[in-house]
Amino acid sequence: MTILPIEPLTRAAFAPFGDVIEAAAARGDYPINDGTAQRHHDIARIDCNAGDGHGLISIVHAQPRELPFAIVMLERHPLGSQAFVPLSPARYIVVVAESPEAAPRAFLASGGQGINYHRGTWHHPLLALDAAADFLVIDRGGDGGNCDEATLPHPYRLLRE
Amino acid sequence: MTILPIEPLTRAAFAPFGDVIEAAAARGDYPINDGTAQRHHDIARIDCNAGDGHGLISIVHAQPRELPFAIVMLERHPLGSQAFVPLSPARYIVVVAESPEAAPRAFLASGGQGINYHRGTWHHPLLALDAAADFLVIDRGGDGGNCDEATLPHPYRLLRE
Repeated sequence: MTILPIEPLTRAAFAPFGDVIEAAAARGDYPINDGTAQRHHDIARIDCNAGDGHGLISIVHAQPRELPFAIVMLERHPLGSQAFVPLSPARYIVVVAESPEAAPRAFLASGGQGINYHRGTWHHPLLALDAAADFLVIDRGGDGGNCDEATLPHPYRLLRE
Repeated sequence: MTILPIEPLTRAAFAPFGDVIEAAAARGDYPINDGTAQRHHDIARIDCNAGDGHGLISIVHAQPRELPFAIVMLERHPLGSQAFVPLSPARYIVVVAESPEAAPRAFLASGGQGINYHRGTWHHPLLALDAAADFLVIDRGGDGGNCDEATLPHPYRLLRE
């Protein structure tokens, strides 16, 4: 089975697939509230208005997965972006691909990094590590089929670190 | 100075002003990802599309405020909802009012509770307690004046607990 290397999650490497949600990724930084707070502004755009859609906020409580793990399928949300932000500094693995036929890439999110998949990005469902963790999820509500699934031509393997 | 009592933050009490973001507030609960995760679905709606608007994700790093604290002003965002979700179980105080002329109410958010102000809700800027904390903020980007400020007819005082 083809081994999928696990890369560090950086904005540059992840840019074709979405945004990394961390303070350093802001499009602007400025003080607010009489200087008692700093706003790291516009880290990710919410793109959930297709059709009658709207953005909504949910919480996902994820059990940890064990490595090694076989990646056999991907999914995408054709009608909206989807963000995951851990509500504690949990580690998780993000697997994305340009298409189900292309070789996927795997990134290790750590230290509280969140991610926002661009609308239509092929990705694997959440792969939490280490312990159960809560993630804030920002994605689309509204009518229309917003989840396509694809089985990969052959599986890929994530190895234990 | 009128003393403003600090109430516990509950969904029922906060409902006229916005949503409490916590798992128990979900409009639906269901397993996802082959049962390895539980989705607490649709806790809060993002209402940021007025005009050419869109939702965006930012991070605010807030210094703690000291009590007692005088509430002398409120603000509102007429074009969009605004959510704050602590990225650690930080405590903070949420002050809201039906109008600048009405008596405000103060709520203590604790244990990781987030809040989503409905579009147009009068509220005080973020009042973190105890220690500096990061908050995920979900509000509106786009043209148009989206912040009104009002000085209160007389100040209210938040007392040390």
